[in-house]
Amino acid sequence: MLDLIIIGAGPAGITAAVYAARKKMDLLVISKDIGGQTAWSGDIENYTGYQFVTGPELVAKFEEHMKKNNIALKENEDVIGIEKKKDKVFVKTDKGEYEAKTVIIASGKRSMELGVPGEEEFKNKGLTYCATCDGPLFSEKDVAVIGGGNSALDAALQLIKIANHVYIINIVKELTGDPVEQDKLKNSKNVTIMNEAQVTAVLGDKFVNAIKIKTKDSEKEIPVQGVFVEIGLIPNSGFAKGIDKNEKQEIKVDSYNHTNIPGVFAAGDVTDVPEKQIIIAAGEGAKATLGVFRYLSRLK
Amino acid sequence: MLDLIIIGAGPAGITAAVYAARKKMDLLVISKDIGGQTAWSGDIENYTGYQFVTGPELVAKFEEHMKKNNIALKENEDVIGIEKKKDKVFVKTDKGEYEAKTVIIASGKRSMELGVPGEEEFKNKGLTYCATCDGPLFSEKDVAVIGGGNSALDAALQLIKIANHVYIINIVKELTGDPVEQDKLKNSKNVTIMNEAQVTAVLGDKFVNAIKIKTKDSEKEIPVQGVFVEIGLIPNSGFAKGIDKNEKQEIKVDSYNHTNIPGVFAAGDVTDVPEKQIIIAAGEGAKATLGVFRYLSRLK
Repeated sequence: MLDLIIIGAGPAGITAAVYAARKKMDLLVISKDIGGQTAWSGDIENYTGYQFVTGPELVAKFEEHMKKNNIALKENEDVIGIEKKKDKVFVKTDKGEYEAKTVIIASGKRSMELGVPGEEEFKNKGLTYCATCDGPLFSEKDVAVIGGGNSALDAALQLIKIANHVYIINIVKELTGDPVEQDKLKNSKNVTIMNEAQVTAVLGDKFVNAIKIKTKDSEKEIPVQGVFVEIGLIPNSGFAKGIDKNEKQEIKVDSYNHTNIPGVFAAGDVTDVPEKQIIIAAGEGAKATLGVFRYLSRLK
Repeated sequence: MLDLIIIGAGPAGITAAVYAARKKMDLLVISKDIGGQTAWSGDIENYTGYQFVTGPELVAKFEEHMKKNNIALKENEDVIGIEKKKDKVFVKTDKGEYEAKTVIIASGKRSMELGVPGEEEFKNKGLTYCATCDGPLFSEKDVAVIGGGNSALDAALQLIKIANHVYIINIVKELTGDPVEQDKLKNSKNVTIMNEAQVTAVLGDKFVNAIKIKTKDSEKEIPVQGVFVEIGLIPNSGFAKGIDKNEKQEIKVDSYNHTNIPGVFAAGDVTDVPEKQIIIAAGEGAKATLGVFRYLSRLK
């Protein structure tokens, strides 16, 4: 029987896998893709040790690292259920069923998408889902942040220091993020807040050059070179029934990455660990495997 | 006034600094060295994204990363005290005093040393303080683990799968680590446990080739190519008076890296976060700065 199944192959899952291989565990990684959100990140300047690397490049390095350690991988496979029975954890996918002594859930998050024309076409060509990762690339540009909650305001606060002008496109009547942050934005000279405004299309040539906005009584185009979609993230935790989650559907973990079910661990963006960053997810993946190692050591 | 002072320039401190620079904080790093424990690590194969890198090489990359971001650094400076007064944190060193709105303590840990002849000479030449980092380099070799507590047993359990033979040199009457782990070691064919045995010297030529052991009634040499010193780590937290610590003198942090004093954060090995690994410390450093960013955003 396998010692460990890791669900997901983003920074958390891959780091967990490398640590597990080095602990000589019998393991299997099941994931629908390699790299998770990192794969569609733009340029990365905050993964310590790499001054500059693109998302796809970093994913390639992660993948090589995993391959170097001869880690068994089932790719393009979707986990649809997970169940603990006696001392085994059963993982059900769209293609089969697997069992192991332990599981690490590192299935990450996905951004909520706008669902408008042009979004797919301009991903990483001006349209991004991560201001912390990609903001510094838009120096002196005009940009739009889509959303009005805390992550949108956080994105906008980062961008006012970098960009020429920041449009905040908020679908409801008022911003919903923290008032202190709202004040800062309202006092900033290079911000335009548009409430009750809905993005209907992302326009461009090779790169984004405008967004189309619909308000109560008009429809217009705003020229921007960057679009930051910050309307929320959804944890990929739907398959994890019976596992404790917070109100955001993030899996609750303690500082050893235990969930409420013994033998089931979780790491990275799918968990309630604050802040979603590549280096943080990687660290959590390492911590989860070391937690698994302790757990296995204590089994007969 | 500075937004942030970071104490320490290991993986946690440097990652915290890179994140802070990208958030355009006014910051200063104060550290007695660059790289912390990483600088004296041997070969590193578990920092995700680098299949293989030496400790000093990784430190060089970290340092470049920090320099690229124009981060102010006071090196060779020892922090001797820290004090919060009103909304300021004062950091006292052996060379001066600094103040900032916030502080991240990332001063790391140091290994307890044997204090015997040969120890200094053979550091990273067969003698190491980290089985997780360096264990895989001793495939088919004979090694000695010095210590009898949980970290020594953990080291030995890792090494029995890799090394030819593992000697456990324990200074007291019996091992003090978990019984389950003791059993596993006692049932293993390639382990020799020596209780009431004290290492008196590390011997070698270019690399370690033996240790000298003193028992109740004899003194002898045991030929080994590797020596794993696992007699404990000490957090560099002595200067942090008034900050809550656990019984190991590790600084207590919550999941946002807050200490008990508002504006004072901590990250990495100096904290009570379980598991001491480079990638984990780096992730914690990022998390601490994002915590500082939230805190500063909420200040008037």
